Amino acid sequence: MKNLLKYFYEQLPKIENCLQQEINSLSPLVKPVAQHILDAGGKRLRPVLCILTAQAFGCREDNVYPLAGALELIHSATLLHDDVLDNAIMRRSQKAAHLIFGLKETILAGDALLARANQVVTTYHDTSLISCVSEAIYQTAAGEILEIERMKQETLSFNEYLEIIMGKTGYLIQTCSQSGAILAKTGGPCQEAARIFGRNLGIAFQLVDDALDYTVDHDSTGKPLGGDLREGKLTLPLIMFLQTQDRKRQQDLLDKIKERRLTEEEHLWIVDQVKNNELVSSTRQVAQKYLDLARHSLEQFPSSSEKDLLNQVLEYIQTREN
Amino acid sequence: MKNLLKYFYEQLPKIENCLQQEINSLSPLVKPVAQHILDAGGKRLRPVLCILTAQAFGCREDNVYPLAGALELIHSATLLHDDVLDNAIMRRSQKAAHLIFGLKETILAGDALLARANQVVTTYHDTSLISCVSEAIYQTAAGEILEIERMKQETLSFNEYLEIIMGKTGYLIQTCSQSGAILAKTGGPCQEAARIFGRNLGIAFQLVDDALDYTVDHDSTGKPLGGDLREGKLTLPLIMFLQTQDRKRQQDLLDKIKERRLTEEEHLWIVDQVKNNELVSSTRQVAQKYLDLARHSLEQFPSSSEKDLLNQVLEYIQTREN
Repeated sequence: MKNLLKYFYEQLPKIENCLQQEINSLSPLVKPVAQHILDAGGKRLRPVLCILTAQAFGCREDNVYPLAGALELIHSATLLHDDVLDNAIMRRSQKAAHLIFGLKETILAGDALLARANQVVTTYHDTSLISCVSEAIYQTAAGEILEIERMKQETLSFNEYLEIIMGKTGYLIQTCSQSGAILAKTGGPCQEAARIFGRNLGIAFQLVDDALDYTVDHDSTGKPLGGDLREGKLTLPLIMFLQTQDRKRQQDLLDKIKERRLTEEEHLWIVDQVKNNELVSSTRQVAQKYLDLARHSLEQFPSSSEKDLLNQVLEYIQTREN
Repeated sequence: MKNLLKYFYEQLPKIENCLQQEINSLSPLVKPVAQHILDAGGKRLRPVLCILTAQAFGCREDNVYPLAGALELIHSATLLHDDVLDNAIMRRSQKAAHLIFGLKETILAGDALLARANQVVTTYHDTSLISCVSEAIYQTAAGEILEIERMKQETLSFNEYLEIIMGKTGYLIQTCSQSGAILAKTGGPCQEAARIFGRNLGIAFQLVDDALDYTVDHDSTGKPLGGDLREGKLTLPLIMFLQTQDRKRQQDLLDKIKERRLTEEEHLWIVDQVKNNELVSSTRQVAQKYLDLARHSLEQFPSSSEKDLLNQVLEYIQTREN
């Protein structure tokens, strides 16, 4: 992984510089909220993916950075709104923004970051690029809506879960690689390969994230162990666990999870059951399938050092432990 | 006003058709929220302004309607978010959406409508048009942020108030006429005339709205008499009234207004004072100045029946009583 890490640290200052410029342009009411969510870290996976894809298709200009930054702004905006909607307590090892800065400030910071990202993308004067990003913004909102809708259902099938993570995470990550390819002005088939690459990488990334939620505690992921369970989120490890229970027990647990009525004992028991039944590794095996699909799309990229680094991104997702 | 009304009723079905199509494309979770805010009426001022301006500059195609509809979607989205942020109770004679459908549903409906409007605008493949609308979305969010920021100040000057209403209302209305001119592919000076026309019309519209809030009750405007005062909003009639009070009294009232601690008696007393001191008509006189500026810009439009109708829009704003 040494190369990827080296590349990452080379790119980071340019990405952070773009992000800081955008934060500085915000009003005093929302600036601390934006600063908080962006300072709390995050992997900058989205900007790195956009930059790597653009460079893999021959883009050598620095004009990729504002686009890459805008994609991280969109991601940060959705985190802010999602935490409000999910009534989340923690985000990236810190108190969720709405609990520090207030509901109004957090909603408005999300609105402002989204609007600003949109403006940055329009400065490229490329309607394919603008369409691609505006589609991602729409699909990301639609994904969050779908998740909340589906929580009203009795249970969730694998395909329904997949549809949600595609909306919530997959579309924006797809857009990172796709928009990089568009910026590089590569041809249609290469753009499509970049899109499919990002799509499958995005799904795998979320699957691994959902698996890690049951294995890694607070200190390393920034979220409490079993945090998704606490927030009533039906992710794949939990869906698979519920399927091991009889009908009545399943319904009883589902009601408690959705209504956030689990006792601490029940919570810990479910987390243990998920781990003991190897549902974490089953989830990672599903992620593996999507990583293989992404790798297949990547084969259609021309040879380059950035293509090698993109392969390392896939390895990183496969093996990451926090 | 007969001509304008006739024109309005001719255009309305095409506008409503676009809006309904967009509503129908939404998910079940947010569709009723969008249907509610759009069914509750509103004057469709923004789409009509866009269509009239486009036609005034020679655009004869039906492709103006999706753009006009998108501008109303943006307006509706901001109403939904604003009502959440202001903790509003009523909107257009009905309970505010978040009180009927819930906070999550209302925030997400706003997000979805904004994202969808954005997508509609990108389908025009015109980067000037896209920039113009994305600027309006950003400035509208910035205006709402500024209003909340300014509420933390001791008081508000006329210029600060103006800056807020320009952000909250002016920019989007400016964009309606400006985007109509861009769509009609008219030259730079005409686009600029359309922009300034919309800008001043928008400011005047909000000034009259703020004046009417102190004169017209619930049944005809859909908001309770003195609703802005109840929501702690410092609008021009109230700013002028506070200036008539001595320093101590002013501070005392301001604190109560901002903290929503006014008794019903004090509330009614302020509303009466605003009316009796002719501050409603003073506010309308200020609006008149902006309408004159708008009229001046309109003179630069080529002669057409739509130009005459735009003049009637100015008259309508000047004289409207609800």
